[in-house]
Amino acid sequence: MLDPALDYTRAHREDALADLCELLRIPSISTQPDYAPYIAQAADWVAAYCRRIGLENVAVMPTTHYPVVVGDWLHAGEGAFTLLIYGHYDVQPPDPLHLWTSPPFEPTVRGEHVFARGASDDKGQFMAALKAVEAYLRTSSRLPVNVKVIIEGEEEIAGPGIPGFIRANTDRLAADAVLICDNPMLAPDQPLILYAVRGNCYVEVSVSGPATDLHSGTYGGGVENPFNVLVRLLAQVQDAETRRINIPGFYDSIRPIDLVERARINSGIVSDAVLRAATGVPQPAGEAGFTSAERVAIRPTFEICGMPGGYMEAGRKSVIPAVAQAKVSFRLVPDQDPVDIAARFEAFLRAQCPPTVTLSVTSSGFSWPVLMDPQTKAIQAADQAFERVFGRPAVYMRGGGSLPIAHDFRQALGVDIVMAGLGLLDDNLHAPDEKFFLPNYYNGIEAIIRYLALLAE
Amino acid sequence: MLDPALDYTRAHREDALADLCELLRIPSISTQPDYAPYIAQAADWVAAYCRRIGLENVAVMPTTHYPVVVGDWLHAGEGAFTLLIYGHYDVQPPDPLHLWTSPPFEPTVRGEHVFARGASDDKGQFMAALKAVEAYLRTSSRLPVNVKVIIEGEEEIAGPGIPGFIRANTDRLAADAVLICDNPMLAPDQPLILYAVRGNCYVEVSVSGPATDLHSGTYGGGVENPFNVLVRLLAQVQDAETRRINIPGFYDSIRPIDLVERARINSGIVSDAVLRAATGVPQPAGEAGFTSAERVAIRPTFEICGMPGGYMEAGRKSVIPAVAQAKVSFRLVPDQDPVDIAARFEAFLRAQCPPTVTLSVTSSGFSWPVLMDPQTKAIQAADQAFERVFGRPAVYMRGGGSLPIAHDFRQALGVDIVMAGLGLLDDNLHAPDEKFFLPNYYNGIEAIIRYLALLAE
Repeated sequence: MLDPALDYTRAHREDALADLCELLRIPSISTQPDYAPYIAQAADWVAAYCRRIGLENVAVMPTTHYPVVVGDWLHAGEGAFTLLIYGHYDVQPPDPLHLWTSPPFEPTVRGEHVFARGASDDKGQFMAALKAVEAYLRTSSRLPVNVKVIIEGEEEIAGPGIPGFIRANTDRLAADAVLICDNPMLAPDQPLILYAVRGNCYVEVSVSGPATDLHSGTYGGGVENPFNVLVRLLAQVQDAETRRINIPGFYDSIRPIDLVERARINSGIVSDAVLRAATGVPQPAGEAGFTSAERVAIRPTFEICGMPGGYMEAGRKSVIPAVAQAKVSFRLVPDQDPVDIAARFEAFLRAQCPPTVTLSVTSSGFSWPVLMDPQTKAIQAADQAFERVFGRPAVYMRGGGSLPIAHDFRQALGVDIVMAGLGLLDDNLHAPDEKFFLPNYYNGIEAIIRYLALLAE
Repeated sequence: MLDPALDYTRAHREDALADLCELLRIPSISTQPDYAPYIAQAADWVAAYCRRIGLENVAVMPTTHYPVVVGDWLHAGEGAFTLLIYGHYDVQPPDPLHLWTSPPFEPTVRGEHVFARGASDDKGQFMAALKAVEAYLRTSSRLPVNVKVIIEGEEEIAGPGIPGFIRANTDRLAADAVLICDNPMLAPDQPLILYAVRGNCYVEVSVSGPATDLHSGTYGGGVENPFNVLVRLLAQVQDAETRRINIPGFYDSIRPIDLVERARINSGIVSDAVLRAATGVPQPAGEAGFTSAERVAIRPTFEICGMPGGYMEAGRKSVIPAVAQAKVSFRLVPDQDPVDIAARFEAFLRAQCPPTVTLSVTSSGFSWPVLMDPQTKAIQAADQAFERVFGRPAVYMRGGGSLPIAHDFRQALGVDIVMAGLGLLDDNLHAPDEKFFLPNYYNGIEAIIRYLALLAE
């Protein structure tokens, strides 16, 4: 079975690219309600593709929010391994638009990359897994193991509907492992297996003062400026020197890391030089007492993502804004609980907020950190499959990003989580000029063809 | 001459409103370059109106930026008083648009008010002065004193062209006094004469970090977040308790205020209760050791007007922004120099900015504070004229806003500056639902008719 599938995928690379580009043209932005029709269009596209390649029981299933595409092929026989393939068809917003070299929803191949929003995160990656399934079913009409598929539409908004969907469909989704193809490799020849992800706690802070924006001459000095208050509040969150987070109890539930793991993290590929090259910063910066590699893997963060309110256009306008807002993200590490962190953050702000303004704190997205044992069969087989195609054994790392679904799967299904991705560190995820390295797409299909075979051994 | 002019204006109120609404329909926003055609349209409209009412030497004159409308009537005879009437036809941007009850450039009368951007600031106010000129010229073909007119188009951006224009046209503009009809009254029956204005120093601060917006998971904790740095820098500017500004030397050149003036300021109409009612804030706030009345008149301010950068739309996006910006305004009092303050602010920020980001500080608008002697003839005559129409002598106050042109006129022409306006404190200047109280428009025309007669005595 294996060789015909490999031959098939090598002979059909142009088709694989064409299918991916069709999907990339759909602007399935989940955070902006106006784009809901494109969410539906993307779900329908994925379902149609799954049916076309021979998956069974394919359905676009509703959740309380955006729909989920499911399907399966369960004829591998008694006692066969069952792999659940997970991906997400939704994407981040493309703004700032003017920084894109080509339009974000007109996929454009330049050199060995395809540029488009969602190319790497995550359409390109889950399509590689589905293309592996296609290669088997088209050539042998069967797969080495049972396969289930779940492709969701609200990953980028830490989906309100998906956790309930998983809990309500444990029979349909039951598996031995979940393959989450939504992660980077370290280089085109260096596979990466993540055995942990950070959690996330997204909070919107709003400080309200006057009933409307006020003339800063007539009233300036006499009433509180909500932005002046907000910068004072936010400046207290993190120590200016050590970058430690000052919220009481913030670090209390962090699991200690042993020296062996810390040494492995520091012997990995993340370094000051890599961070500089990948981001363009003059020098790395972060929490005192930790290396760059540690800061992005085993330490929590406090990031201000944007501060809407007042006058944000070109030119000058002298106003005291009625409202100042901040969109804030905390990345969390095991065993920090985002619900607990949000409550502590709110209490910290309230304790310092003057009575001259009204403070509102809204948690708009929780994601729990996850930590896996790297020695399970599902992870070790992925390592071997990627090594055969990419030429090197995987590096094992803790991931800096969040995968809310990993926690959801683990809680509801008790499955192993395999996080082995096909992106690259410079893919501009969530940023202008997002891209996907095409050799990783084609090699990724082969690696997953091999992975399915190894899982059957 | 006086009575026919008064009769005329009382008989032509509908025309006066219709003319004003025509001008209010032109969205002459000076801070947004896209609106330049409307600036030209507004200038042409004002010039055509001046010609229509019988002013002479009317011209739309270029400056290095936006054009100025000038005109005069100089036949009052040897030794006659010459009054220069000043106004501005440009307006502030209307955003946030969704908070307007009716569209900002579709003037709408509700109750006794006309609602439109620019209704009070400043189209309604200078039109009242021109309507007074119209009343005399239409009924007597002459005016009690010589009158010159200058209506400019860049007041709201602290115009780059107007100071040079005034210096280059001192003969054409020479006068005994300038009437600046661009100020509020305290109430519909309480005229106000401002004998001082605050200066302004508008600065745009920009903190740059990574080359593009970054995924806050992949890189979070490892590189500097420009917003985290910016809130720390801005939080240092003002003491959290006393609201004193911490920039070294910031207060050094402030002229001491004597106790008599301070008492007069505190016996005026501005109080905590007035501020609360006018702005909707739960309680006033400001610099320790000063009353609300003092804070908005004789004390400088630090206001953050907006903080663009990163993700500012609805929903969530987890990014480390490439750039974080702040638009900052300092209101200044005699004898603070905005150029000096901008330099001190930049030095203060640079001294505290970490080397992990790039700081850029751009001063985009300077306005000098002005202080007048209230006992001049031009001011006293205005007080009498307003008293006869509105029923009460004027309150004398220092204004909280800025009038860059007042300093320009005083420096170039050596004239007295008369700041007696027709707006109200709740006119929503620079804010949604800007309006002009129509009885003030009609009474204002009568007051200025009387003012011109008093100046001839």
